[in-house]
Amino acid sequence: MRFLGIDPGIAIVGFGIVDKEGSRITPVQYGSIQTEAHTPEGDRLEHVYEGMLQLIDRYKPDTVAFEKLFFNRNVTTAMSVSQARGVLVLAAVQRGLPIGEYTPMQVKQAIVGYGKAEKKQVQEMVKMYLRLQTVPKPDDVADALAVAICHAHSYNLNSKLNEVLRK
Amino acid sequence: MRFLGIDPGIAIVGFGIVDKEGSRITPVQYGSIQTEAHTPEGDRLEHVYEGMLQLIDRYKPDTVAFEKLFFNRNVTTAMSVSQARGVLVLAAVQRGLPIGEYTPMQVKQAIVGYGKAEKKQVQEMVKMYLRLQTVPKPDDVADALAVAICHAHSYNLNSKLNEVLRK
Repeated sequence: MRFLGIDPGIAIVGFGIVDKEGSRITPVQYGSIQTEAHTPEGDRLEHVYEGMLQLIDRYKPDTVAFEKLFFNRNVTTAMSVSQARGVLVLAAVQRGLPIGEYTPMQVKQAIVGYGKAEKKQVQEMVKMYLRLQTVPKPDDVADALAVAICHAHSYNLNSKLNEVLRK
Repeated sequence: MRFLGIDPGIAIVGFGIVDKEGSRITPVQYGSIQTEAHTPEGDRLEHVYEGMLQLIDRYKPDTVAFEKLFFNRNVTTAMSVSQARGVLVLAAVQRGLPIGEYTPMQVKQAIVGYGKAEKKQVQEMVKMYLRLQTVPKPDDVADALAVAICHAHSYNLNSKLNEVLRK
């Protein structure tokens, strides 16, 4: 079964795709969709949307997961990232994919076993977990892989994914 | 020339369409795209997106304008509205429409002639301006018409709309 994890953004969308067979999780592909600064917002959103559709059509994940966004301070950033998240979710829904969502704490718990783990710890565990040579860069890619792994773990626990996670 | 004004939201998207011939502005259609509470976020975003495409395809506006979002307090609301705004902007870009954006102050200035006008004043002026019997309800619809009128006013001033407004 194939899991796509997404770390939303308007400049960089991190993505990570993993397969799970039995209890074994292996990396399939990871990277980012990037948009040019100083180009019209609408064009950037379209690029993110098209990139997501291509990703889904090429790698055919069975389900996708997003990290739940939290912003305490910068509302402008929150709005910008949320616009991108909107078109990413739209693409997933249009392709009929079940959508999971996890808090940063849930992701850390799933990867490190400790909900307040440092970002560095999570990244190192992602690297070990997937037997990678280095920590994927930029951070958005490692974060997306962490979400994908978290989703792969949790999926076992939730046979009725659609009802439980799509709320 | 035909102008579409949009007041973004996830529960209610207000829209207002006006025609401008010479200096005369007349209403074409106005109303809202509404989504059901307690349905999956992705489905609501898809509904908003599809509704926007239908609106554009049916009324064929030449350009669309959004009110610029400002949120001081509720980041959760800001993120929810921004996700909807993302798919609305995407639909406009996919249909090749030039996009305008105005601050609430610019809209008030255009409608009432005073950037700090009350919401009620703006609504009354929209009603008079378009020779309507009553103020359109809910507020989102009146707001969308105000943005459409503001856009129609400003368009004259900007022949190079794409360069000036799509930033």
